[in-house]
Amino acid sequence: MKLTSGVSQLVEALRCLPGIGPKSAQRIAFHLLEHDRDGGRQLGQSLTFAMENIGHCKSCRTFCESEQCDICLSAKRQDSGLICVVESPTDILAIEQTGQFQGRYFVLMGHLSPLDGIGPMELGLDIFEQQLRSGAVEEVILATNPTVEGETTAHFIADMCAKHDVSASRIAHGVPVGGELDLVDGMTLSHAFSGRKKVN
Amino acid sequence: MKLTSGVSQLVEALRCLPGIGPKSAQRIAFHLLEHDRDGGRQLGQSLTFAMENIGHCKSCRTFCESEQCDICLSAKRQDSGLICVVESPTDILAIEQTGQFQGRYFVLMGHLSPLDGIGPMELGLDIFEQQLRSGAVEEVILATNPTVEGETTAHFIADMCAKHDVSASRIAHGVPVGGELDLVDGMTLSHAFSGRKKVN
Ligand SMILES: [Zn+2]
Ligand SMILES: [Zn+2]
Repeated sequence: MKLTSGVSQLVEALRCLPGIGPKSAQRIAFHLLEHDRDGGRQLGQSLTFAMENIGHCKSCRTFCESEQCDICLSAKRQDSGLICVVESPTDILAIEQTGQFQGRYFVLMGHLSPLDGIGPMELGLDIFEQQLRSGAVEEVILATNPTVEGETTAHFIADMCAKHDVSASRIAHGVPVGGELDLVDGMTLSHAFSGRKKVN
Repeated sequence: MKLTSGVSQLVEALRCLPGIGPKSAQRIAFHLLEHDRDGGRQLGQSLTFAMENIGHCKSCRTFCESEQCDICLSAKRQDSGLICVVESPTDILAIEQTGQFQGRYFVLMGHLSPLDGIGPMELGLDIFEQQLRSGAVEEVILATNPTVEGETTAHFIADMCAKHDVSASRIAHGVPVGGELDLVDGMTLSHAFSGRKKVN
């Protein structure tokens, strides 16, 4: 009785956005209907396209609507022989903003968490091991988050690199311990990269 | 180079949401892609439907995807002879939550603001005047916001009611002056309704 079904459906659907409660959802719905139909239309299309078509790059696992992402397709980056391992696609954005790293990435989409059933396979480490085996990788930079889980994951991957005689390094401390990598400023990240230490 | 076009389009499109900056837009996009594709798909569909199909009720001007809204279609509410005039559809929700008002509404979608080119026609007051003329309206309750513009608009509509010999009342003060009607708690709103004063 209070809202017509189209409006209440929209308000309900907006609740899927993280941090949006019922009151905010209502305000957003009315804002779009009253002041920004073009924006709302564009967002509707982008969401529909993204949810249907965006998968994962077959080489680095980042979000991507084609088979391989632009970074993986770049010959220059491939030739560098460097792979930086990160937990999430947002970490790539943060690192790219420093402009300092010219290699490729591998995105774990998480970290090892045996209690949640997240093991090496769930992080795509079988794909990663194939890349190590190919001989095209000279150095792996471990840029997982400086948390307990991130460190454990980094150690696990360092051992995997050692097994394949590939050198591995961990980005320097400088990123605040316990924090999230993609919240760190560019300067700190740059320092963390240049001060990286060999771990095997 | 940093984000594939589908992902960056989504991040860009999310910026149309009020209060969402570039960083939040990124986090929302990745959250939906990683953890809630169903929610994102549903939101995409609801937005597309809403932006294309939701117009205004021909009687009360609230948002509605059919010709008339459920409240206007209700014979019981029509028979009450009461019309409550509000500035925005969210005000209807706030009033409906008190469960105290059993009449119909008229939504101005704003208030008089000559400097912005918003006069009586822009607020649909021509439609409202037809309703006064029809003889079916016994009392008009003016529930515009307790702001300078809301008061001015209420006075203007009270004069219009007087011209057509329709009684008009203003909701009682009790709603904090300078505040927004839809942020007021239900108890305060109930008091404001029962303590309303005749203005002509
Ligand atoms: Zn890739
Ligand atoms: Zn209506």
